[in-house]
Amino acid sequence: MPIAALIRRARDLDEANPLRHLRDRFRLPDGVVYLDGNSLGAMPVKARDIALDVIERQWGQDLIGSWNDNGWWEAPTRVGDRIGELVGAAPGQVVVTDSTSVNLFKVLMAASAMMPSRTVVLTDQGSFPTDLYMADAAASLGDMVVVTMPPPEMVEYLRDSGDDVVIAAVSSVDYRTGEAWDLPAITAAAHEAGALVAWDLCHSGGAMDIQLDAHRVDMAVGCTYKYLNGGPGSPAFLYVAERHQDRFNQPLTGWQGHRDPFAMSPRYEPDPGIARGRVGTPPLLSLLTMEAGLDTFDGVTMAQVREVSLSLTGLFMEALDQLVPQVEIATPRSENQRGSQVSLRHPEAFGVVSALIERGFVGDFREPDIVRLGFAAPYLSHEQVIDAAVALQQILAANHHLDPRFVKSKVT
Amino acid sequence: MPIAALIRRARDLDEANPLRHLRDRFRLPDGVVYLDGNSLGAMPVKARDIALDVIERQWGQDLIGSWNDNGWWEAPTRVGDRIGELVGAAPGQVVVTDSTSVNLFKVLMAASAMMPSRTVVLTDQGSFPTDLYMADAAASLGDMVVVTMPPPEMVEYLRDSGDDVVIAAVSSVDYRTGEAWDLPAITAAAHEAGALVAWDLCHSGGAMDIQLDAHRVDMAVGCTYKYLNGGPGSPAFLYVAERHQDRFNQPLTGWQGHRDPFAMSPRYEPDPGIARGRVGTPPLLSLLTMEAGLDTFDGVTMAQVREVSLSLTGLFMEALDQLVPQVEIATPRSENQRGSQVSLRHPEAFGVVSALIERGFVGDFREPDIVRLGFAAPYLSHEQVIDAAVALQQILAANHHLDPRFVKSKVT
Repeated sequence: MPIAALIRRARDLDEANPLRHLRDRFRLPDGVVYLDGNSLGAMPVKARDIALDVIERQWGQDLIGSWNDNGWWEAPTRVGDRIGELVGAAPGQVVVTDSTSVNLFKVLMAASAMMPSRTVVLTDQGSFPTDLYMADAAASLGDMVVVTMPPPEMVEYLRDSGDDVVIAAVSSVDYRTGEAWDLPAITAAAHEAGALVAWDLCHSGGAMDIQLDAHRVDMAVGCTYKYLNGGPGSPAFLYVAERHQDRFNQPLTGWQGHRDPFAMSPRYEPDPGIARGRVGTPPLLSLLTMEAGLDTFDGVTMAQVREVSLSLTGLFMEALDQLVPQVEIATPRSENQRGSQVSLRHPEAFGVVSALIERGFVGDFREPDIVRLGFAAPYLSHEQVIDAAVALQQILAANHHLDPRFVKSKVT
Repeated sequence: MPIAALIRRARDLDEANPLRHLRDRFRLPDGVVYLDGNSLGAMPVKARDIALDVIERQWGQDLIGSWNDNGWWEAPTRVGDRIGELVGAAPGQVVVTDSTSVNLFKVLMAASAMMPSRTVVLTDQGSFPTDLYMADAAASLGDMVVVTMPPPEMVEYLRDSGDDVVIAAVSSVDYRTGEAWDLPAITAAAHEAGALVAWDLCHSGGAMDIQLDAHRVDMAVGCTYKYLNGGPGSPAFLYVAERHQDRFNQPLTGWQGHRDPFAMSPRYEPDPGIARGRVGTPPLLSLLTMEAGLDTFDGVTMAQVREVSLSLTGLFMEALDQLVPQVEIATPRSENQRGSQVSLRHPEAFGVVSALIERGFVGDFREPDIVRLGFAAPYLSHEQVIDAAVALQQILAANHHLDPRFVKSKVT
């Protein structure tokens, strides 16, 4: 297909895009095609208004009364329910609190206490490192051992050796390659083995149609600042299926997880529900401003978001095949095996990313050789996808990526 | 002294107040005398500008580049150093991260690992409950036992039985009565016994002249949303004296505490310095807006803040003695034994607080019978102190506090 035909097709897809009205809910800099929503989501227009309301009215005017009058106390569970809607969780099972790392620690420690006769934490060596560190930490404290393998091998492992597995803790999408693992199959295999499963949704929440309840997932964690557009470092979420909550005893027993926090009792008694996942006072400005990100999904379904995301990544790979066939695509072609990003392997990956950024196409680099480009369906168009592929073609043709200015330094 | 004389004296004190110019750095509602800065500090004028800059420029415009270009990555230690200045800690020893509860967990677990042959966590049954819950949690995981006693008894206990003490973990000010404990004496007694000491500075940071380094405190935690005016739920801080950092191995081994986080190594290796106290991605909007609170201390010393605070609380108690001598004051009279609040015991404490709030004097209630009034020196005047005492006199004289509308419900 000549480039003109690709562009025509992109325009037709944009014309029919059920999310096209969502683009106005974001503010992005002129001249930027933002392909890094998998690292930090774009800024929703409403973020400014919410933050000003929190600062000037709720804090400045209503002061301490806001804990009751402006719903600060209930915010972690109220906003948690909103996130629950986006990841297929009925109300009362999601709480916004702490960071993904801390929430994973809670999950692994609670799971250990729920399964005292078992010893294995099953995880993926390719997980984002913090997940591995937390598995090691929990294993050390909970007398468990960590067994790692690629997620596709877990089904067989669980079948053969699953009776010693406490929990399979897996990222639903590989943060480097963008490969999506088989959540239903691994969850079912864990349950067959009598084990628990916890999914890290950092790279799928807000991008894929995750159905936690439908697949009877036990626990999940995730961040809110990527595809959920919650803002820099907005607090993370924790999902515990209702059927497990009364046995979810996590060791970070802060006062906000107490069943009667204002009794100021010297003994900890956990809240009967998901609020037992809370610890200390939440960062309310970050937490409440995050709602601007959740609002950007108003009126659309996650099935629609997923469909557009697949259309964007699919078209990008098709354009790459045509324009830069020499580049290796690390992300699977199969729709049910990819998340919402397309990763390329290139020996000068850092230079490629730098050259793309210089031309206004913002992606990121991951060690050792990954060009990572995220496609957030709510604010990207198919035409931008073609523009990105063309930019990559031009960069490689001009050896722009070999420019000596692109010396690798810290990139997030 | 007749009331007119009290007012004259207050005006003279205000005239000479070295902090009087700080009042303009805050915005408070008209008609409110805010005596709850010990729960949520007042809003600094600059908070709005900082938050808008973080949202619109750093997030909206610079996007992911802000991690480097706007110093997001270094913010927890950079802002930590600023807090260090206010609590007597040289640079490189304070990090802003997580909540006070989570930080206390890190401290107690790290201490346990540093002192494997000892078993006792010494703490105060009167601590804010989260401190007790965390002591129990760490004791359970670290094979320790919790021994509680009032802080004044700790010096003797440490002398007699201190050789089994891992750490004395004490709040520097009792959150109910406002009594300040003897930080130098307890710290010295712990050290004599070969034990560590950790201070919870929630009710003293930003109000008292805490000298962590000078007293050779080992570790400390504290929140930033009370006297430091950081905003609702702004993240907490953690202090680890430099001499202990290389052995401070805390179990929440998140990727942001790694010595080389972007190497994405599967094995955790802690940062050599205070950054090992970091865990996951920090809530940057809350963290950076907090700096507006720290800015309110620009150009004054904590010795000055402490002096004015003592002057305010001292004048208040004097006025109470004169106007409502029947009311029991729970806070010690001695200057070195009180923090920055004055607490009253009253059988209808909830009604008293409610009636005060109705008249614009915002304090809070603590179970079972405490009227808690905090005096933040940067934005309160001595004249307001007298007004508050007069309001209390009028409420009690009119039995306003017995108004049946004041039914106790959740008050924070």
